[in-house]
Amino acid sequence: MSKYVVAVVGATGLVGKEMIDTLEKRQFPVSRLIPLASERSSGSTVFFQGQHLPVSVLTPSSFEGVDIALFSAGGDISKEYAPFAVSSGAVVVDNTSHFRMHPQVPLVVPEVNGEALTQHQGIIANPNCSTAQMVMALKPLYDAVGIQRLVISTYQSVSGAGKDCLEALESQTRAALSGVPHTGEEKPFLFAFNVVPQIDVFLDNGYTKEEMKLIQETQKIFNDPSLQVTATAVRVPVFVSHSESVNVQLKSAVSVERVRSLLSQMPGVQVLDDPKHQRYPMPRLIQSQDDVFVGRIRQDLSHPHGIELWIVADNLRKGAALNAVQIAESLISMSLVSVPQVSVFS
Amino acid sequence: MSKYVVAVVGATGLVGKEMIDTLEKRQFPVSRLIPLASERSSGSTVFFQGQHLPVSVLTPSSFEGVDIALFSAGGDISKEYAPFAVSSGAVVVDNTSHFRMHPQVPLVVPEVNGEALTQHQGIIANPNCSTAQMVMALKPLYDAVGIQRLVISTYQSVSGAGKDCLEALESQTRAALSGVPHTGEEKPFLFAFNVVPQIDVFLDNGYTKEEMKLIQETQKIFNDPSLQVTATAVRVPVFVSHSESVNVQLKSAVSVERVRSLLSQMPGVQVLDDPKHQRYPMPRLIQSQDDVFVGRIRQDLSHPHGIELWIVADNLRKGAALNAVQIAESLISMSLVSVPQVSVFS
Repeated sequence: MSKYVVAVVGATGLVGKEMIDTLEKRQFPVSRLIPLASERSSGSTVFFQGQHLPVSVLTPSSFEGVDIALFSAGGDISKEYAPFAVSSGAVVVDNTSHFRMHPQVPLVVPEVNGEALTQHQGIIANPNCSTAQMVMALKPLYDAVGIQRLVISTYQSVSGAGKDCLEALESQTRAALSGVPHTGEEKPFLFAFNVVPQIDVFLDNGYTKEEMKLIQETQKIFNDPSLQVTATAVRVPVFVSHSESVNVQLKSAVSVERVRSLLSQMPGVQVLDDPKHQRYPMPRLIQSQDDVFVGRIRQDLSHPHGIELWIVADNLRKGAALNAVQIAESLISMSLVSVPQVSVFS
Repeated sequence: MSKYVVAVVGATGLVGKEMIDTLEKRQFPVSRLIPLASERSSGSTVFFQGQHLPVSVLTPSSFEGVDIALFSAGGDISKEYAPFAVSSGAVVVDNTSHFRMHPQVPLVVPEVNGEALTQHQGIIANPNCSTAQMVMALKPLYDAVGIQRLVISTYQSVSGAGKDCLEALESQTRAALSGVPHTGEEKPFLFAFNVVPQIDVFLDNGYTKEEMKLIQETQKIFNDPSLQVTATAVRVPVFVSHSESVNVQLKSAVSVERVRSLLSQMPGVQVLDDPKHQRYPMPRLIQSQDDVFVGRIRQDLSHPHGIELWIVADNLRKGAALNAVQIAESLISMSLVSVPQVSVFS
């Protein structure tokens, strides 16, 4: 079996570390791992296959000899360095939003639209965390019945905002429990014992960028611009795992039993739905699991084609690192680990 | 101006205390306050108008001479003792769910359907906290445009579950910050750094009782069984104030500007909606305020008649104590502080 030189850009970040763990755990065929990060992480190491590997500073020439580059260091870094990776012959799996809506860049969740990988021109985008877990649960319904409209409200954990925000949640929580009053000016947000209806920046239409990602990425992954989607993206004081309340308006009426059966057959999805015994997915309890969990499945009383779903997943796993590594695995199994002559940057 | 003998049942609970504070703050015309509670609170006092008043144990004869009885001690207590209050000639304002859907019991938010008070037969029900704040924001849209359908997801604070749960949130949070792992068996729920998609018990249709309250109470308050409503009620690790993501499908298309203008004119509602300056309602910041706050107002991209709203209020105020006292104030101003000959129990 071939082995590959794999670079991880943003190797010291929350998702980068998870990517490295995931490569090891899934026994990804790595011949050499190259952890890359900014000057700020210079001198640090990452632990991989029993060894402490020094983190190198990211430069345009970092990608010589690299087969696969996993990027998770922010959109600006992807914008600047992904072209160097591709021109060095590396296939890029980008976890940032930078290339996601680019028409020549496939946006892929392997179980949902893995076939889109065949169109890649050097870069494959990993969807936003909240989109990835949702489309996993929606896929079997989309295929079997068709989806008309989605009304989404999210309950997103602070890990989605990065390491500094996890520390902010912790220190703000300690302060609150010690009786220190909040100032209302906490940066970037007052996370502790609060709920923040803003993730990413606001756009002119009143939606946040995070909400528009949920809308546009879902349409792109299903390759269906007619899919009607609205979303409210909200940060909750949870460390890891995103939850989503999703009202699904199907194209025709389907029983709850059939929905449950369809979801149960979807690889990577677990139905956890036994309300009489208080069993339903909760973020803190499913943390560090790979699967997407779905519960609270019920007939929407307000619409004959409506189904209510409660979807929870570890946002660092299926929402980020796991999906990126699964994309790389799919590239291998589909013999697509090479940059075509006409790359996205040609 | 007449003054009234007011009994507060559940005087030592979170809502009971807030009721007593609210009576004082709003200068409710109290000639005598009678705080009532169970044996468990025997010996305790409440503070009202500069005095420590002893809490009496609730008995069937507690209501002699009482004009107005505010109940907030659980549905079973209301069920058992409200008939004694009414037969003693007291008008009952009940904050529990017990009588809310009773056809002879008006369910009232004064600004929304105060006229329903004229039909009372001794008992007026105070809506569920999450319903009360929502109908405040919906009222001007319902009247001016008409509402077809609501898709609701809530972010409810732990105070809605009572004092013991507030303590559980605090102690569970301290434990988590000290590195104590959760067991998953925390009672009544694992609140800390978690999100719980269950409030109240489950019904056969897969909805919780809390969700059905949102659906049925909203229809009752608007006196409109054709109003289509679905809801997912979720507990978040917040001490006080409930937030709601509400997708409103109006009967016709309306601009965001008109929605904002209609909401701004509604008494008791404040529009806090300036996303460019990161101004939107958040539970911890609006705690201890009487008004219902609405922000994130935007045109729903998935439906031509859709509007997205983010509604936040202190659940102990407008969702409970404030609304109950406002009902009592309305009874006074409408000369309805008396039990009609044909009472609800006749």
